[in-house]
Amino acid sequence: MSLNPAFLQDIDAALGPAGWSQSADQLQAAATPWRGTYRGHTPLLLLPASTAEVSEAVRLCARYGLAITPQGGNTGLVDGGTPHGEVTLSLRRMQAVRDVDPINNSLTIEAGAILTSAQHAAQSVNRFFPLSLGSEGSATIGGLISTNAGGVAVLRYGMMRDLLLGLEVVLANGDVVSQLSGLRKNNTGYDLKHLFAGAEGTLGIITAATLKLYPQTARASAWISCQTSSDVVALLALMRDQLGDTVTSFEMIPANAIEMVLKDRPGTRDPNPSQHAWRVLCEVSLAQPDLAQTLLEKALTSALDSGLAVDAVLAQSDRQARDFWTLRESIPLSKRAYGRSLNHDIAVPVSRIADFLHNTEEALKKLLDPVEIVAFGHVGDGNLHYSVCEAETSSAQQLVKRADEITATIHRSAQLYGGSISAEHGVGRLKRDELEASRPAAATAVMKAIKQALDPEGRFNPDRVIASAVRTQTKRTDDAV
Amino acid sequence: MSLNPAFLQDIDAALGPAGWSQSADQLQAAATPWRGTYRGHTPLLLLPASTAEVSEAVRLCARYGLAITPQGGNTGLVDGGTPHGEVTLSLRRMQAVRDVDPINNSLTIEAGAILTSAQHAAQSVNRFFPLSLGSEGSATIGGLISTNAGGVAVLRYGMMRDLLLGLEVVLANGDVVSQLSGLRKNNTGYDLKHLFAGAEGTLGIITAATLKLYPQTARASAWISCQTSSDVVALLALMRDQLGDTVTSFEMIPANAIEMVLKDRPGTRDPNPSQHAWRVLCEVSLAQPDLAQTLLEKALTSALDSGLAVDAVLAQSDRQARDFWTLRESIPLSKRAYGRSLNHDIAVPVSRIADFLHNTEEALKKLLDPVEIVAFGHVGDGNLHYSVCEAETSSAQQLVKRADEITATIHRSAQLYGGSISAEHGVGRLKRDELEASRPAAATAVMKAIKQALDPEGRFNPDRVIASAVRTQTKRTDDAV
Repeated sequence: MSLNPAFLQDIDAALGPAGWSQSADQLQAAATPWRGTYRGHTPLLLLPASTAEVSEAVRLCARYGLAITPQGGNTGLVDGGTPHGEVTLSLRRMQAVRDVDPINNSLTIEAGAILTSAQHAAQSVNRFFPLSLGSEGSATIGGLISTNAGGVAVLRYGMMRDLLLGLEVVLANGDVVSQLSGLRKNNTGYDLKHLFAGAEGTLGIITAATLKLYPQTARASAWISCQTSSDVVALLALMRDQLGDTVTSFEMIPANAIEMVLKDRPGTRDPNPSQHAWRVLCEVSLAQPDLAQTLLEKALTSALDSGLAVDAVLAQSDRQARDFWTLRESIPLSKRAYGRSLNHDIAVPVSRIADFLHNTEEALKKLLDPVEIVAFGHVGDGNLHYSVCEAETSSAQQLVKRADEITATIHRSAQLYGGSISAEHGVGRLKRDELEASRPAAATAVMKAIKQALDPEGRFNPDRVIASAVRTQTKRTDDAV
Repeated sequence: MSLNPAFLQDIDAALGPAGWSQSADQLQAAATPWRGTYRGHTPLLLLPASTAEVSEAVRLCARYGLAITPQGGNTGLVDGGTPHGEVTLSLRRMQAVRDVDPINNSLTIEAGAILTSAQHAAQSVNRFFPLSLGSEGSATIGGLISTNAGGVAVLRYGMMRDLLLGLEVVLANGDVVSQLSGLRKNNTGYDLKHLFAGAEGTLGIITAATLKLYPQTARASAWISCQTSSDVVALLALMRDQLGDTVTSFEMIPANAIEMVLKDRPGTRDPNPSQHAWRVLCEVSLAQPDLAQTLLEKALTSALDSGLAVDAVLAQSDRQARDFWTLRESIPLSKRAYGRSLNHDIAVPVSRIADFLHNTEEALKKLLDPVEIVAFGHVGDGNLHYSVCEAETSSAQQLVKRADEITATIHRSAQLYGGSISAEHGVGRLKRDELEASRPAAATAVMKAIKQALDPEGRFNPDRVIASAVRTQTKRTDDAV
């Protein structure tokens, strides 16, 4: 697609030469997400350096009839931030920490800053920003808000939207809504921040956010073995009865995932080698370091007495706790090194995890036998990363051939247990149609009415989340989520 | 206003004789909020007993061109739930606990249930529902969600919207959106629950909600004296450094408010009588009762050593802790018994509380001298209930005469410090125009676009939150908030 030269002149006048690029390298990078499993294309990369420049860029695109895909770290998994013909507007030149206030426990930071920048800004004033996930060195604040990111501390601190105090957003007409006061209570009209959070760039372009900070805490970590998934779920209830909501993470990991990691990453070891089917990584946070350790140890004793835990190792140092987390965080890549897999991002009510796991496996066995399943995730919020992997007897070809049936089986099972087929990764183009087909029509109608109200010309990330008039499609690949 | 008899016949057929009333008593009760400071009128009270009946009632009102004011406990303070000519739709026959799941930590309850019912349903399965406020025996779940209620545990658990997992809502066309799965992670499209929460019944009628439950905790409470408001704010930071976010409440109370309570409620006493200007009620929650007490005691020692606290009493029993809370919760009514007052619901960033208090008092002294100010509230979230009271030398007449100037002064000061003039009570008709005048036009435009998209005929609670074409007005009285 060639662009109107007058448009490029206007862009150059508004953003300056550093504010846009048509170099083939840059365009290709913008159109390729990090996993590279699908590819887009874009005629222009916009690189505004301020909210005013974003606003001006949006006005110019509107004037020339061009659609925009806003882009952060390009780490999404559902084809939400990859351009497919749209102008790409990257926030990467907007990374400033505008304000950090340890007394108000708030941080105002621009959308293009990466997550670790927010974590460091909080640490610099002896505070804690709790969002944490594998891609934190690349994923940006704007993208994390636009996709309502999850991660490993949702049990205690909630999703990204729960950590928001305010947003600055550029609307489809170029106007700016700025609500960055850092107030914790402010009932002065409809809550706009929650409308833009999780909207995947389809309603506005987030340029900055004010985030909640928390007191720093000390953590104690344990690596626990359990026999069954129902024991894992019951163990969480026991730990929370004993420890209240000082339990900040509770990750369930199947033994076969650990095997994949040990094989793939030399030097790793299972802290608690056993034949049991499940491991749990449990983390407790308290202001007092010694106390966190003592209380977790006491709770583990109860857990072992109850029989829900069959083995447990308490990390004796930060180093050992990091080793536990390395095992957990290595699963996605080690699984990939092991072979091909079909990945799914499921949530079910916590009380139904065990039934869901059992019955989904039974259903899958009718398609593939033996079937190799790696289901790991955040028990406290019911989120399971559910993969069907290449196995000795079910080859990659079989996986690819039966991919649609496998995914349909898993999604049907999730829905049967009152679950979600997109827990934390979002909708994008990849799951748009499947979600529309499964969502009650009244809810889709409300979503469409909101899209029409806020972006009547459909210029912001068209065809993501909800379908445009001209529907496009991302092909689900074996590496889809 | 007389209603079309055919409409009443249709209503009777749809809802049955228990489903509506035109008795003068019931209509008057529906049109009178509990404080009785303004009065409305309504031609009909609808009392649907199910979501299907709410849906049918909405369809019938639409067919006959009638607007609806949804009503819960009628405890609002901003003229949001009092009918002014609209049909009143009360949710009070919908009080069922539909589901309580201690493993998923969720509770599904109908909109007409009162807050204490939700608290009790949680307790019945050894869980905790944290929302707590003065009117919890009357305020309903639907109203609390529609107004995004606050209360005394926001510091740790957030506002009502933060406690929501899902909603069931009847739309303006009578369709029902039901998202009550209890999932903690579900990124499958725009987040509709946050759109209806805090919308004060202008976008849909909430009929049921799924709420988050928490582990039960034991609490330890202290009554602390401080010399200045900056010491109070610094004390909170010290307590959180020591105790992390196990600090669940931190209420600041001026000495003159305590005097009013002691005079008004025989048998009450200041646990820590002193000449110091401020009291703090600080509560710490942990799973382990002894530990909560020990840790709070240790933190109080540091607080006294630092000089930020000048006296402190640790409650030695639940009874004593309840006595502390009685002092705090009695302030609104004892202040009323003391005399007339002009009340305001302010929030400022926590770091600016002390400056706000000092400079607002200076500004008010130019209007009234002496001026008697009672400013109490939730330090952790910056929310101050700010009253200017009848004093010996500034009589009630003076207060009423200068009411507009006094309110304008306080609101101007709040805005100067980046604050809000409606922290937790909402907008209603009372603050609609003032908020529109102070809100940037782009934000109001987004709100209006959403209202138009979801309720194009303006049938749901017209003229609350944002103005209708025909604007109506609630007169601010001396008891306004």
